[in-house]
Amino acid sequence: MSLRPFFDPKGVAVVGASRERGRPGYTLLKNLISMGYRGAIYPVNPNVNEIDGLRCYPSVSEIDGDVETVVILVSAERAVKVAEEVAERARKRGDVKAVVCISGGFSELNTPEGRERERRMVEVLRSAGVRLMGPNCVGVIDCYSRFTTNFDVDDYPAGGVSLVSQSGALATALIFWARPFQKIGLSKLISIGNMADVDMVECLEYLKDDETTKVIGVYLEGYREPRRLFEKMRQVSQVKPIVLLKAGRSEVGSRAALSHTASMTGTDALYEAASKQCGVIRVRDVLEWYEVIHALEKQPIPKGGRVTVLTHIGGPGTLTVDRIGTSRLLTMATISERGKSTIRSMVAPTATVCNPEGYIDLTASHTEELHYRVLKVLFEEESVDAVIQVLGHSMFLNQRLMAEKVHAAFEEAGKPLGKTFLNVVAFDESLPEFKLEMERRGLPTFPTPEIAVAVLEYMLWYARKRRALADAPQIYPIPERSEAKGFGSKAVLIENQAYPILERYGIPVAEYRVVGSEDEAVDAAEKVGYPVVLKAQHPRLVHKTEAGAVALNLRDPRQVREAAESVKRNVIAKLGEAPTGYLVQRMIGSGVEVIVGGLRDESFGPVVSFGSGGILVELLRDVTFRLAPLSRSEAREMVEETMASRLLRGFRGEPEKDIGSLVDLLMKVSDLMVNESWIRELDMNPVKVLEKGCVVVDARIVSR
Amino acid sequence: MSLRPFFDPKGVAVVGASRERGRPGYTLLKNLISMGYRGAIYPVNPNVNEIDGLRCYPSVSEIDGDVETVVILVSAERAVKVAEEVAERARKRGDVKAVVCISGGFSELNTPEGRERERRMVEVLRSAGVRLMGPNCVGVIDCYSRFTTNFDVDDYPAGGVSLVSQSGALATALIFWARPFQKIGLSKLISIGNMADVDMVECLEYLKDDETTKVIGVYLEGYREPRRLFEKMRQVSQVKPIVLLKAGRSEVGSRAALSHTASMTGTDALYEAASKQCGVIRVRDVLEWYEVIHALEKQPIPKGGRVTVLTHIGGPGTLTVDRIGTSRLLTMATISERGKSTIRSMVAPTATVCNPEGYIDLTASHTEELHYRVLKVLFEEESVDAVIQVLGHSMFLNQRLMAEKVHAAFEEAGKPLGKTFLNVVAFDESLPEFKLEMERRGLPTFPTPEIAVAVLEYMLWYARKRRALADAPQIYPIPERSEAKGFGSKAVLIENQAYPILERYGIPVAEYRVVGSEDEAVDAAEKVGYPVVLKAQHPRLVHKTEAGAVALNLRDPRQVREAAESVKRNVIAKLGEAPTGYLVQRMIGSGVEVIVGGLRDESFGPVVSFGSGGILVELLRDVTFRLAPLSRSEAREMVEETMASRLLRGFRGEPEKDIGSLVDLLMKVSDLMVNESWIRELDMNPVKVLEKGCVVVDARIVSR
Repeated sequence: MSLRPFFDPKGVAVVGASRERGRPGYTLLKNLISMGYRGAIYPVNPNVNEIDGLRCYPSVSEIDGDVETVVILVSAERAVKVAEEVAERARKRGDVKAVVCISGGFSELNTPEGRERERRMVEVLRSAGVRLMGPNCVGVIDCYSRFTTNFDVDDYPAGGVSLVSQSGALATALIFWARPFQKIGLSKLISIGNMADVDMVECLEYLKDDETTKVIGVYLEGYREPRRLFEKMRQVSQVKPIVLLKAGRSEVGSRAALSHTASMTGTDALYEAASKQCGVIRVRDVLEWYEVIHALEKQPIPKGGRVTVLTHIGGPGTLTVDRIGTSRLLTMATISERGKSTIRSMVAPTATVCNPEGYIDLTASHTEELHYRVLKVLFEEESVDAVIQVLGHSMFLNQRLMAEKVHAAFEEAGKPLGKTFLNVVAFDESLPEFKLEMERRGLPTFPTPEIAVAVLEYMLWYARKRRALADAPQIYPIPERSEAKGFGSKAVLIENQAYPILERYGIPVAEYRVVGSEDEAVDAAEKVGYPVVLKAQHPRLVHKTEAGAVALNLRDPRQVREAAESVKRNVIAKLGEAPTGYLVQRMIGSGVEVIVGGLRDESFGPVVSFGSGGILVELLRDVTFRLAPLSRSEAREMVEETMASRLLRGFRGEPEKDIGSLVDLLMKVSDLMVNESWIRELDMNPVKVLEKGCVVVDARIVSR
Repeated sequence: MSLRPFFDPKGVAVVGASRERGRPGYTLLKNLISMGYRGAIYPVNPNVNEIDGLRCYPSVSEIDGDVETVVILVSAERAVKVAEEVAERARKRGDVKAVVCISGGFSELNTPEGRERERRMVEVLRSAGVRLMGPNCVGVIDCYSRFTTNFDVDDYPAGGVSLVSQSGALATALIFWARPFQKIGLSKLISIGNMADVDMVECLEYLKDDETTKVIGVYLEGYREPRRLFEKMRQVSQVKPIVLLKAGRSEVGSRAALSHTASMTGTDALYEAASKQCGVIRVRDVLEWYEVIHALEKQPIPKGGRVTVLTHIGGPGTLTVDRIGTSRLLTMATISERGKSTIRSMVAPTATVCNPEGYIDLTASHTEELHYRVLKVLFEEESVDAVIQVLGHSMFLNQRLMAEKVHAAFEEAGKPLGKTFLNVVAFDESLPEFKLEMERRGLPTFPTPEIAVAVLEYMLWYARKRRALADAPQIYPIPERSEAKGFGSKAVLIENQAYPILERYGIPVAEYRVVGSEDEAVDAAEKVGYPVVLKAQHPRLVHKTEAGAVALNLRDPRQVREAAESVKRNVIAKLGEAPTGYLVQRMIGSGVEVIVGGLRDESFGPVVSFGSGGILVELLRDVTFRLAPLSRSEAREMVEETMASRLLRGFRGEPEKDIGSLVDLLMKVSDLMVNESWIRELDMNPVKVLEKGCVVVDARIVSR
């Protein structure tokens, strides 16, 4: 069933309607009327006959007209009974399609009774083909159909923003914030509550095709099937941006794992990884959530990162340039010589033109007309992707005229060329008329330089990411492929057991032989080539280095033999038994050490990890994640994100390493992690990246 | 002369007064009257006789009453002439003490004419004992004396905040931001302009002793004598907090230097270092500047970092706890069992009490009285240092009553115990009455969870830092001590020249000998003890390793002799001459490598640097700075701030290293950098920190 009846029902019943002003059951009716909802409204309350002229019904079953949606405001116990009535009516009359249950007292209580009530309600409604939103929510607002089940917000201006939120308070906070200066126009607000039936994925799917929705804001606390959610987000992000505020950054990782890489995987790192992978703009805090949504509704996403700053107040102008200077994505634009001389011919001699590049301070000698003329030059510059104008109170400007002139410059020059235009109003409170006029005309204003620049960074990140999304592999569903493991649960497979599995996927392992005796070890060393590493093998031997069972950098037969004997003595001393054999492996002395791994998260499934080797990963947690399967460009991004990339590109005059082969390796690990679903953790530490190729020199696999 | 006449003059002349509404020369007069300035006002304008009933004078010299301060609003050329008249009057009548020159057109133009006008104006006024503020500023506001020279802001509520700003726009932006909800009360606003005479240090000194100033906000773009400024800030910070917004974070370092450490020293790193050292709260952006000032005016600084969060809206409450979880300084408070059971007995069964610890969500079942009662319990908990309350729109609350109740709880329990109390109002726009009532009562409100937590972090940092400030050594003035260098300008002193200088300050250097022949090298090795390092010496030999002039880890006489011969051959091949000698040094194989250095910055003078060794400093710039001389606690802070501290505390089961000896070393370097003022750069790379002691194994000094 489409979610349409939640947003545009032909008739609505409000169970728990009230005559008492200030009660939800009264304000909801009032809001339906003040919004201008065009369908029929049926208040339900057995104790009253009418509310403000609307006829009131004793129960849902006695409503004579067609009811497509029922809103429930009564106590949890009563709500279940109402659901039963609704189901009966749906079966008989076939009119009811949707229930919005505002009431709390269900699974969010974390009690058996609460959970049972919720289960029962879903079951009853589902049996009659009726969909449920909530319970424990503030429901929906649709500013186009003019339908609402929300008692907190009355009439609100229509626009391009839709919100899906696991907290009703947070979604309404955004629109109360935006209201006085019309910062955002709303398409749909969805407070999704306990998601007993209708869930976030369905809502996103609906909003993807919703013509009036231009940008989607999501507030998320947790989701049982994150992979399903993010696959949907990836599809949506190709069409329109999603701005995600996700709680749980500081959540301590829920699982203790054997390998380093896995132990660093708090769930939040995977939400972060999935957001990057799916083009979801994940912001850091509430203010960014507000302002990024605000900017995306009103302005085009930039084509590049070259920014020019126009101001008449030096302090806030300087801070804007300063913040751009710290950005990894943005740079100050270089204005053409022609552009510069045109601007110089317009401004006062006291003005600053392009010092530093792309920065123009008109100083106090400015007029509305001057701003208009300079803006037009800037908008027409080919080398400019975005313009930030920083304004303050000025005795020399008329606020309304200024807004008109600024708007005209954008419409005439910037809009046709798709430039992004953001305004900082440094004297927030002293330019109210200017702000309101700008926002009304679709030109967003921001309270500080720093937030405007941060917003532009997010927009550009999305602009760049979006292009790659179409080619990315699907992350949901991924079939469970192989269960053929032949190892027990939580078995730890070390090198000689792990290597053949890697080799099956074409992952290059440093050449090795497993042999039974000292003589064979010498033969093996001759074959793999000196220098070699020798490691004693024994089923009970876990911490080899600590047990003195490893010898490095052996350069001739004598050294191999001596090492084998010494290692044997150590193992006997440790375990009371001789080694069962020796692993002889070519020693790779050069190259940059990195760590490549995989893990299977309980919610996110197969994941690929990549990080710097040695001390960097341990001290800095310099490691990044992506869900498998991944695309080549994602694999490349993983390498670029870490400190390791600087070492690989040739640090301190070292020759550049073969990053291409490392990307190949990550793709193979992705493949392996998807296919070998019995693997819980894979840890290749280190992998040596050489000038040509890369090679695994130690590995471990833990089964599920 | 005291700055008092700038803030509380007995009579003021306004040169450039105007009858035209909307012109600065009119609004300034109007503001003086509406503020209720009690002194005499003398408008000066040769073309009019009176302005709004005030008698107007043709020139300063013709004013009959006593004029203590003159405000100049006319053009730059005219302003210099006015200054001449003022000086003449001061000499004759002795009444004028101060000039505030609003006019621009001086040194900020960066032209010879502009600079000359400014020089002339200062000279003329100084000769008559008259002080100058500006030019190119918006002057002062004093909300207690009711005096103003500001045409942008009219009457403003009095309070505890004073601002000193190099941008008039930024200071006024703050008070326009704060105005609608009375977020801050103002003591003095000082727009300091070009600082031709009165400068920031004097203003800070004045505000330090100003009884009505509780917190000082500073906006800084640059200062010629930063050390003088920060020494003053350190003195002020012991008495009241300074909140600094400094432009120039992304400024590229202005100097190219030989050593790594110096090359990483952008000037901004030194402003950052000086701020830490002097207890100055340096914020990251404009919003933080506003809100930290806001909080510090209204609430006590916390005694510790244990926070409790009380809310009735789960989403914003969760985000608050989440942000505290990412903080290095703050933790969630643990409420006593008694406290918990008291709270549980008050709240609805649906409420969340201390899950996680310190977090209470009342849910929708709340009343004003319930908030009051729960707050009182929280305030009385010994384990609670700060309370953050997160509120949203609620049908069940009366805004005014809520503010009264919340205030009563704080007054009765929190205030006497010195707890910090911050409120987040998540529905900013829907609770205007609550916000205004709270702010009026001195309880600050914040628009998002994240900014409230960030503010608390800054407050706590200051609270902790302030205690140590009194014991810190003075950083200004530092006498120029020794010029006895015996080295040319920009000379590079390598090990054998540098070591004796270090040793004079008791800095431990790995034992070494400088010898002339291969035979002596063997003798030297025997004396310093194996293993040793051998390095060829030659005046033209700069990059020793690259030239093959270094041999490591020599373990016996044979190896030393062979190495000396091989090194000699390499030097002859490179330079055409044999080495002049050899340096033989004990090789230190163990220990954690760190880098310790010093540099002499053109503005900041002697600086001590400390960082991780090896790859960490190069990849991560893991290095920190402090001005010399430093205190022991600052030296310890330097170590704590870097990644090196984790290695030193015993990483991966390694024994802990001797951090005390490293702190000693930093103190000695501080001493050396202060005394040996001929040194431009000192680079000890690496220093090995051992389980007992630490030792320099390579060093270089560059003279000025």
